[in-house]
Amino acid sequence: MMKQITDGDLKAASPAQLKEYCNALREEIFRTVSVCGGHLSSNLGTVELTVALHRVFDLPHDKLIFDVGHQCYTHKLLSGRANTFHTLRKRGGLSGFPKRSESEYDCYDTGHAGTAISAALGFAKARDLKGETYNVIALVGDGSFNNGLVYEALNSIKILGSRVLIVLNDNGMSISPTVGGMHELLGEMKGKPPLDDVRLFERFGLSYRGVVNGNDLNELLPALEEAKNDLRHGSVLLHVSTKKGQGYSFCECAPVETHGVSPSQKQSEYNAALGEELCRLAELHPEIVAVTAAMTDNLGLRPFFEKYPARAFDVGICEEHASVLCASMAAAGMKPYYAIFSTFLERAFDEIIHDICAQELPVTLCIDRAGVSGADGETHQGVFDLSFLSFIPNLTVAIPKDIGEFRAMLRASADFRGPLAIRYPREGSEGAISDVKIGKFEVLHSTMSDITMLAAGERCLRIAEEVRGNALAEGLDVGLINARFLRPLDEELLLSLPQNTLITLEDNALIGGLGDAVARFYRARGIEKTVLNFGVGDRFLPHGEPKELMDDFGLGKADILAAMRKHYARG
Amino acid sequence: MMKQITDGDLKAASPAQLKEYCNALREEIFRTVSVCGGHLSSNLGTVELTVALHRVFDLPHDKLIFDVGHQCYTHKLLSGRANTFHTLRKRGGLSGFPKRSESEYDCYDTGHAGTAISAALGFAKARDLKGETYNVIALVGDGSFNNGLVYEALNSIKILGSRVLIVLNDNGMSISPTVGGMHELLGEMKGKPPLDDVRLFERFGLSYRGVVNGNDLNELLPALEEAKNDLRHGSVLLHVSTKKGQGYSFCECAPVETHGVSPSQKQSEYNAALGEELCRLAELHPEIVAVTAAMTDNLGLRPFFEKYPARAFDVGICEEHASVLCASMAAAGMKPYYAIFSTFLERAFDEIIHDICAQELPVTLCIDRAGVSGADGETHQGVFDLSFLSFIPNLTVAIPKDIGEFRAMLRASADFRGPLAIRYPREGSEGAISDVKIGKFEVLHSTMSDITMLAAGERCLRIAEEVRGNALAEGLDVGLINARFLRPLDEELLLSLPQNTLITLEDNALIGGLGDAVARFYRARGIEKTVLNFGVGDRFLPHGEPKELMDDFGLGKADILAAMRKHYARG
Repeated sequence: MMKQITDGDLKAASPAQLKEYCNALREEIFRTVSVCGGHLSSNLGTVELTVALHRVFDLPHDKLIFDVGHQCYTHKLLSGRANTFHTLRKRGGLSGFPKRSESEYDCYDTGHAGTAISAALGFAKARDLKGETYNVIALVGDGSFNNGLVYEALNSIKILGSRVLIVLNDNGMSISPTVGGMHELLGEMKGKPPLDDVRLFERFGLSYRGVVNGNDLNELLPALEEAKNDLRHGSVLLHVSTKKGQGYSFCECAPVETHGVSPSQKQSEYNAALGEELCRLAELHPEIVAVTAAMTDNLGLRPFFEKYPARAFDVGICEEHASVLCASMAAAGMKPYYAIFSTFLERAFDEIIHDICAQELPVTLCIDRAGVSGADGETHQGVFDLSFLSFIPNLTVAIPKDIGEFRAMLRASADFRGPLAIRYPREGSEGAISDVKIGKFEVLHSTMSDITMLAAGERCLRIAEEVRGNALAEGLDVGLINARFLRPLDEELLLSLPQNTLITLEDNALIGGLGDAVARFYRARGIEKTVLNFGVGDRFLPHGEPKELMDDFGLGKADILAAMRKHYARG
Repeated sequence: MMKQITDGDLKAASPAQLKEYCNALREEIFRTVSVCGGHLSSNLGTVELTVALHRVFDLPHDKLIFDVGHQCYTHKLLSGRANTFHTLRKRGGLSGFPKRSESEYDCYDTGHAGTAISAALGFAKARDLKGETYNVIALVGDGSFNNGLVYEALNSIKILGSRVLIVLNDNGMSISPTVGGMHELLGEMKGKPPLDDVRLFERFGLSYRGVVNGNDLNELLPALEEAKNDLRHGSVLLHVSTKKGQGYSFCECAPVETHGVSPSQKQSEYNAALGEELCRLAELHPEIVAVTAAMTDNLGLRPFFEKYPARAFDVGICEEHASVLCASMAAAGMKPYYAIFSTFLERAFDEIIHDICAQELPVTLCIDRAGVSGADGETHQGVFDLSFLSFIPNLTVAIPKDIGEFRAMLRASADFRGPLAIRYPREGSEGAISDVKIGKFEVLHSTMSDITMLAAGERCLRIAEEVRGNALAEGLDVGLINARFLRPLDEELLLSLPQNTLITLEDNALIGGLGDAVARFYRARGIEKTVLNFGVGDRFLPHGEPKELMDDFGLGKADILAAMRKHYARG
């Protein structure tokens, strides 16, 4: 555990001392992330920048907002959290993202890209309306500068007329390398006097300052002081160039691989299967294309991008645009696969409804990190996707029971002619590749008893198997069904079930998920069944181990078993 | 009914004949919209531009995509739909928006802002991959140029490397006048040689051409021919200046008021109450601010904007940014009211979850045009909001029974300290302003019989009252409850209800709405009730009269009455 460095220490430090502080911070981050997992290279890259911000500004009176927030570790270490930093990303410990509940130094929670400038403008406007005087700083990576929300915020600087400092942390990377017109523009600004391009930012009401080496305090501190001074007169964009992974050569050389580090031994990953299957299908189906929003590697699509570069598109952190691109390519005869993390798909909700589903276009959404996803916490828990996909007409929603079934679903998808969503967790087990028919469940254990379980997805099936084992040990026999489609449900099977008590399990919010769907199915037909639902309760899930979280927040085996015993006793 | 003009006619026409065609089209649009309602001034402004596009390009081989799509009337008249144009926006008649199901000239359905450039890129990319040769044109208003999705598309032009023509129809308006940095930039480009700003578009891979008077075919036709020629070498932005309402002086002078025209005699409007109440509350609560996304007038906020200009923000068509702005202002101590149409709120879904609700910030969402909204069709039916708000933790969702209750809810909201959504239709009846307690239903008719109805919102309560009247006439007594909160439900009341059969009514999708919530409530507690749900079935609702649509797609009185009779007979 490192000694707590305060902003007072930073303000009093000599250049040599500051450098020592940076070394200590960098070591502490490396040590902790090696144990706890987390975002490594992005935090290594921003040590000096964060130290400079804490030295030059008066936090928490001044407001510092981190875009995405995965680069806030130095900030946490500097704001009274050095002694708890070893709890990073652990249940009950520090979050890997800014959290207002954790410290007054965290003024605004983030987690998804592109919100910081909007949030800074909100704070600045509130400050002006209330006659307060603090500075507001948004720290934004160049990856987010591709995102439409950042542009919307830039566009409104003049409308709102409240002063903010935007520090553009330009390391040429999102999780994947940054792409697109804005990226090229920023890149050229690094190389030469950026006369034309400076004008662009001026148009939006920003005075431009840059480019500063963000890993060199000798450049950074005076530049930040000047920016702070300019901020008295208007909004400022300070363009800072940093090196992702700075200080650890293997991180500098592999910023994608060291963006996020996981401490645990990994099981097989669904994303590898996605890459393999899409490569295989693309050979047979020339109309297949793949689209991602700055997540090529995390989604397993690197092999596809390498094998089919002309049919693979990383459009940057642009979830909405990616959706419309898929819809329109489908309208023009292509077969697009759009791979994305569950919570980031929320950004494309409107386009899924109107562009993809209302037009009944054959776009396949490959939704990774679905369900309880663990250590990244609230903003990354994929526990709403079944709920927000459940009511969209024309959409088919599939939930594979393992990687083999995921492969089978992908194979079946190639000839499927409507909008399709397949949601799956990060890790899981392999398993046989057998045929999957759209809208057909699989009976895993049939029973003569009055209770059967319907479980969706690998983790819930595993819980169900364990509960079933425990029940059997007590002499209670229960059936188990792999409920692998939310839409359509397997109507034939549901109608044929003799059991009166059905128990549903899903790693999704209880509201709007599989449990509601099954209960609604019987209710609409006037069929009396007792349907008991287990899933995530009505709350935001904090960070922690998925298994623990599921156990504590709605999918505890003891609770399921207790419900079973109770209903057994009745029957 | 006007004579059908074909693209062949246009291509063969003399300048004088073209002008006559334009006059005839303009008259036909004016005449039809006067009867059927619809978008008036936007269509009057784009007659020449559409005629020029049809003359210069080879439709439907070439693909013309309308952003938003509310300006497609001339296009419909020119593409074989002159003889059905009198059915515009009527049930079973022509849609007011492009529809692939209607004509091969409509290659991509639109309705929400900002999708056209993404869609054009998708078509262009598919064309190139398939070795086809058509041109792709996106017609985009300057209002959409504020939208983040447009920026995301611009940013990916270089990534995708497929040629598109973007025709920027710059009339200085969204529905409200366009605002922001991009608007200023475009405005200056109209006035002088746009050297710096041209560079911006070049950065994004567009060669810039402009500015052309889009209401003058003598300027427009050669410019479009040149743009078409340039398009062989790369993507082109053609900047066209048009006058919204062109040709009808009262439309030119009042483009906001004549943007959309409604043929029917109006009832009272909820939006007027919103403006009045917010003005009233703002006097007492200096922390109240109001935010809209380019819809100030349609949402009734004009009085607030006039009375409190420093506390009122129209940020342009930027639904995401508006949400984050509200969340952050709330985090900084303000009390924001964000008024928006139901379907446009889908664009801010992610930010409602993570910025507003996960942080439990006191933002009030005033959701207008909720429920079946009629003549605008699929993209404007507010029938998903209860579903997509139902599962968001920390959110309170209110559904007023009339304008009086809406006023009461707004008054109660001023001291409410969490995220709150109030959803209401466009029109309704006044009604008394009496106290509303959060999470408390209102019993309108109690009954000794075994059936009671729970109805949400004015229109469903009206249906319920009528059904109840019919039932009483048959000797069946049924109760009626104003279920004015989806979250939280009135648990105390629900637990105390003696009836075994409950009937829910909502002008929302059945999946994920009030009916599911009530059934889930009892199911979770092991209480046996028969809960019958009436609402919108699992499909996209076409355009038509709201009353007719509700009758046909899930809320028919005869069906409800039949269900009641059946359960009465049982009981």
